[in-house]
Amino acid sequence: MKRREFLKGAAKSAAAAAVGASAATQLAAPAIAQGKLEWRMVTTWPKNFPGLGTAASRLAQRIGDMSEGRLTVKVFGGGELVPPFEAFDAVAQGTAQMGHAAAYYWQGKSKATNFFTTVPFGLTADELAAWVYHGGGQELWDKLYADFGVKPFLAGNTGAQMGGWFRNEIKSLEDMQGLKFRAPGLNGEMYRRVGVNVVSLPGGEIFPALQAGTIDAGEWVGPWNDLAFGFYKVAKNYYGPAIGEPGSGLECTVNKEAYDGLPKDLQEVIRTACAAEVNAVLADFTANNSKALEELVTKHEVQVRPFPDDVVEAMGKAAQEILAEFEGADAITKEIYESFVAFRQRMLAWSPLAEGGYLPLRARVLGA
Amino acid sequence: MKRREFLKGAAKSAAAAAVGASAATQLAAPAIAQGKLEWRMVTTWPKNFPGLGTAASRLAQRIGDMSEGRLTVKVFGGGELVPPFEAFDAVAQGTAQMGHAAAYYWQGKSKATNFFTTVPFGLTADELAAWVYHGGGQELWDKLYADFGVKPFLAGNTGAQMGGWFRNEIKSLEDMQGLKFRAPGLNGEMYRRVGVNVVSLPGGEIFPALQAGTIDAGEWVGPWNDLAFGFYKVAKNYYGPAIGEPGSGLECTVNKEAYDGLPKDLQEVIRTACAAEVNAVLADFTANNSKALEELVTKHEVQVRPFPDDVVEAMGKAAQEILAEFEGADAITKEIYESFVAFRQRMLAWSPLAEGGYLPLRARVLGA
Repeated sequence: MKRREFLKGAAKSAAAAAVGASAATQLAAPAIAQGKLEWRMVTTWPKNFPGLGTAASRLAQRIGDMSEGRLTVKVFGGGELVPPFEAFDAVAQGTAQMGHAAAYYWQGKSKATNFFTTVPFGLTADELAAWVYHGGGQELWDKLYADFGVKPFLAGNTGAQMGGWFRNEIKSLEDMQGLKFRAPGLNGEMYRRVGVNVVSLPGGEIFPALQAGTIDAGEWVGPWNDLAFGFYKVAKNYYGPAIGEPGSGLECTVNKEAYDGLPKDLQEVIRTACAAEVNAVLADFTANNSKALEELVTKHEVQVRPFPDDVVEAMGKAAQEILAEFEGADAITKEIYESFVAFRQRMLAWSPLAEGGYLPLRARVLGA
Repeated sequence: MKRREFLKGAAKSAAAAAVGASAATQLAAPAIAQGKLEWRMVTTWPKNFPGLGTAASRLAQRIGDMSEGRLTVKVFGGGELVPPFEAFDAVAQGTAQMGHAAAYYWQGKSKATNFFTTVPFGLTADELAAWVYHGGGQELWDKLYADFGVKPFLAGNTGAQMGGWFRNEIKSLEDMQGLKFRAPGLNGEMYRRVGVNVVSLPGGEIFPALQAGTIDAGEWVGPWNDLAFGFYKVAKNYYGPAIGEPGSGLECTVNKEAYDGLPKDLQEVIRTACAAEVNAVLADFTANNSKALEELVTKHEVQVRPFPDDVVEAMGKAAQEILAEFEGADAITKEIYESFVAFRQRMLAWSPLAEGGYLPLRARVLGA
């Protein structure tokens, strides 16, 4: 997803307008009007950012509608109430009762958060939901966040992303050596280990940097969000899919004390509204990515290319090294790593046979 | 899914115990106790049948929990209140207020219902949700069912299914000629057109028929449900994936008058509970199919095989013929067909690049 730096930029620019710490503290107790709860949801996205901010708004809307206004949730874009990357702390401290974000933004607190969003060569969107709901993921996530006083829910997934925009064609691993490429997180680390010169840039600066030649390549999300940024104007080689982010889960966090204090029906309203978003967000990305990809290829003459074999193999090796390092982590991180990797192992036989087996057959018959 | 005949069998055996027509009529008005609504949900599944019946129960539970019991839903397995294949009519007539089923069971009412479950070489689970939520599918479905006084919601998906159990290995299309194969619906029609001798059998009769050699092959759902039936004991060749059913959507139907009479909050409770099931059911199948596949292969020495190329090509041709025949249908069916096919066309570029592009790369690096 890689909007960490983008949002850092957004946070800075919004800093003047943002409610300061003292004002936030003042607001900390949930406002109650006529027996109705009024909660706040902080997010790491610009308000109503396509696919992500819109998901947070829809989630809040569902909760208000289903509870007949007994629990209303006011959504704050990144930087409006607290800076985007203070969203988790705001929920933990009760400045806001809810948050909508991607768990891997909190890897400074625990590296294990990566597993609840995505890791290189990790799970697809459907596999992640299967792990969280039926593979022990939710219980481990609860345990990880309990120390912070936060209750997590899966609440969206972007689906597969793209690998990035490259000014020049990549014919082999050789062409990646020293290439200045914008990519953050574990995905960036994977690229760094295969010889790429990984740089950190806010999302809003990718386009001018690509245009000026300050960077040779950059990645953002997928066709839908990338089209809006206009990367195709300055780089025509669109590599994918993104093996560093095969399906990024979104989270809804709830202050645990606030959640535990809710009547059972409102707890279930939140839980089910989050579950509904998992598919709603993925469907939004699926529909809009397909539309945007068509426009990029037919109207803007973008060349969609697969990464060369030796690049995939080198990145695969780097990704396995990166994951193996989790074995030396603290107990809960190691427990999450082991559960995730065991679940992925089981999916290696099923997924390529199921959806993975079907798509090439359909393509063979209907073309692509 | 192909449990039409299975359920017909279940209905017969349950007929004695089933509530007769007059009793059903007597119950037709929603029971109201202390201002609380008590609704009935009829299903086409045996009660708590793994993945399907359990989804209906969970859906009902969520509605009751979220509404704090203001709307409780009592679930009836197929044949308990009405025979399974009268579930749609029961909802239309208000004998029950809700139903949980697969839309293609109602293809006797309209062939267009197939598109909301699955068609040969159709959409994957994620693509179907994208079409329903963001591709105009819901509006068309509403229009189709409005004539029956029914409001439909997507409420589950089995994900990719398997092609079936074959006593002998299939090496080419030649080996399919005259083969006695149990497969119903459009999927069965596709097989029939490539020379297979398609037979109709209740699910519970597939195993003895395979064992006795009355049939040469049969298909049911996927590893999870197939393992329970023990097909591996009498047929070791497990072909897949099921190109005739690439991802079967489940539906929740609501009597439109009853739905329209609900306060807005309870309408949203139903809508969101259904949306939550789309992913919940798929996650259940994904987790359990992967586990069952492992057991079938390692413990029961099942051979998982892809259909030979000439079989895929012949079935692809047959599937395209079958779909093309929808062009001559009534206006609403044609409209749905055209929307579905246009949406699928757009997915042909995106899906094989996204999840479809990722899975082989992961398999190359991690093995399968």
